[in-house]
Amino acid sequence: MSNNNATSVPEAYPMNGGDGTYSYTKNSSYQRAAANVAKTLIDEAIAEKLDIEDFSSASSNAFRIADLGCSVGPNTFACVQNIMEAVKQKYGSQMPDFHVFFNDHAANDFNTLFASLPPERHYSAAGVPGSFHGRLFPEASLHFAHSSYATHWLSKLPEEVTNKNSPAWNKGKIYYTTSPDQVFNAFAAQFRTDMAIFLEARAKELAAGGMMVLIMQTIPDGIHHSRIPTGIMFDFLGSILMEIAKEGLISEEEVDSFNIPVYTTTPNEMAELVERNGSFSIVKMESTSPWLKVGHIVNNTPQKLARELRAGMEGVFKTHFGSDIVNQVFDRLNDKSGQLINQLESSHRQGTQLFLALKRK
Amino acid sequence: MSNNNATSVPEAYPMNGGDGTYSYTKNSSYQRAAANVAKTLIDEAIAEKLDIEDFSSASSNAFRIADLGCSVGPNTFACVQNIMEAVKQKYGSQMPDFHVFFNDHAANDFNTLFASLPPERHYSAAGVPGSFHGRLFPEASLHFAHSSYATHWLSKLPEEVTNKNSPAWNKGKIYYTTSPDQVFNAFAAQFRTDMAIFLEARAKELAAGGMMVLIMQTIPDGIHHSRIPTGIMFDFLGSILMEIAKEGLISEEEVDSFNIPVYTTTPNEMAELVERNGSFSIVKMESTSPWLKVGHIVNNTPQKLARELRAGMEGVFKTHFGSDIVNQVFDRLNDKSGQLINQLESSHRQGTQLFLALKRK
Repeated sequence: MSNNNATSVPEAYPMNGGDGTYSYTKNSSYQRAAANVAKTLIDEAIAEKLDIEDFSSASSNAFRIADLGCSVGPNTFACVQNIMEAVKQKYGSQMPDFHVFFNDHAANDFNTLFASLPPERHYSAAGVPGSFHGRLFPEASLHFAHSSYATHWLSKLPEEVTNKNSPAWNKGKIYYTTSPDQVFNAFAAQFRTDMAIFLEARAKELAAGGMMVLIMQTIPDGIHHSRIPTGIMFDFLGSILMEIAKEGLISEEEVDSFNIPVYTTTPNEMAELVERNGSFSIVKMESTSPWLKVGHIVNNTPQKLARELRAGMEGVFKTHFGSDIVNQVFDRLNDKSGQLINQLESSHRQGTQLFLALKRK
Repeated sequence: MSNNNATSVPEAYPMNGGDGTYSYTKNSSYQRAAANVAKTLIDEAIAEKLDIEDFSSASSNAFRIADLGCSVGPNTFACVQNIMEAVKQKYGSQMPDFHVFFNDHAANDFNTLFASLPPERHYSAAGVPGSFHGRLFPEASLHFAHSSYATHWLSKLPEEVTNKNSPAWNKGKIYYTTSPDQVFNAFAAQFRTDMAIFLEARAKELAAGGMMVLIMQTIPDGIHHSRIPTGIMFDFLGSILMEIAKEGLISEEEVDSFNIPVYTTTPNEMAELVERNGSFSIVKMESTSPWLKVGHIVNNTPQKLARELRAGMEGVFKTHFGSDIVNQVFDRLNDKSGQLINQLESSHRQGTQLFLALKRK
């Protein structure tokens, strides 16, 4: 196995670290609620499809779980706890020790993650720095891989969207929501490349019979991407940036050269990518609607939505624009959050979360 | 397995993080030189005693190495590289993937450690937060454990040395160098308790046939502990603190209630503790003299010695005295470092490093 970063260096935009006002720790209730919706589905998949006999080809001195793109907690702790309980529920006292691996980019705030590990945990914990768009673990060493709201991040921005001479140039915008098809196609192509690499790496790392659960933002097949809720939010942030550019605080070129490296897939697209990889069978695939259930948009305060968006997205803006402009952007977002909520009324909010349980053949 | 921190919370005094003037990263040449001295011994122990057939009871889908008390690098990277090369030298192309675990207290600066991982590494890397005075890994999951200049740290200070009513009260001093025997005995008893727990945890974690190499500061049996070089340095720091107390900047009580939780063992003591544990056979035990070889004390500049001492010890002082006093202490140490070098002339500098290679029965 060679190191995961030898050939390419995927870009890292960590969630906000620490535990301050705009930290991911204090502003990730949406992701947590989404994890709760997924809990029942994970429990079922493990109860029905996990078969410890299948693990005989791998080491059985430990049951190894990885959370890929774990950020700084606390969601990841609740999540691995769910998985362990479902596994123990099935196998009872025959279980070996659990070894849990928390993975994220090396730039993630692992100090905060480690400081907040549950003190009463009944598992060995390890942090794994590196991009999941590449190898992270020894061959056939994992029994369960999990990734929630992480694989929508692209390993890098497709170059053509910031290239003036390309038909995919995304002038005056920072996302593909209301852009020409060429822009959308460039994002989609990058996602397919990234997901192919992701699946290939996990296929090597998971033992035969091992399972992987992916929880991703999605949009139902047939619904136009302009109705994706996060896309509408990103477009809104783009319009704030253009407003700031018109006031002369930044140049329009700075906006033109910035795009958010995120993509929202569809169920059919994921099914096709899994099939093309060939190493996994799909044991469960289901779209759920956490945005409706948890009352986001409709019941939440606009300011809370603005704060949560900041916790997750500030990092990628900061890298490009610097702290001063980023503060301006998110302060304005806070002031205009009522207007954003109105725009989100036109979004498609049903079936926006894809639950995908795969089994390593 | 239950979590390593459930019953007791060992105290953490991390090496200085980051990469500033007083960082451990920039001030650990002594520890690095010591690791170089140990390299040949590790190579020999692996070549002669490691036997991959012995690992059949454990998983062989990965060769798992742990560095216990790794700090923030770069020494730990060179060290695991040495181990991997020696293992590959022996087994060639039959080797499974390497999985390397970097362990230290959760308060260690893992962000710095992860940022400085060698980009061209050919192994999977993971960070393991927690005290090695307790369980860190699943049962029988490790093949090679290594710990260099870490196990001299006690899990906590023996209470009696700061208790006015105890015969082991260490009034006016911060270490046992020139204290009554009762003080020394209290430190020694704590070390024996800690080492028993350490060996018991590693005996559970190492697979049968697995090896553990410990590199520790030591003093030959029969040499009085007042001649231990680090002890003389700690005593010197104690006299600076008493000087500051006499000037009224801190109280003498603050000095009385502070002691450095470190102990220097002897070869016989370690052999006895290993035998009492019963799970390991000693495959190699050798005392070396890196202080002579690398020219510390004799050839180094006094200021460099003062800086290296600061990088490793500042944390434990800061917890008790706060930053302002710590700056004073180490500034004065720097000014008086010539005087410290003179005092060190009376130290015993031969056989101060113990190399101990153990094999899990």
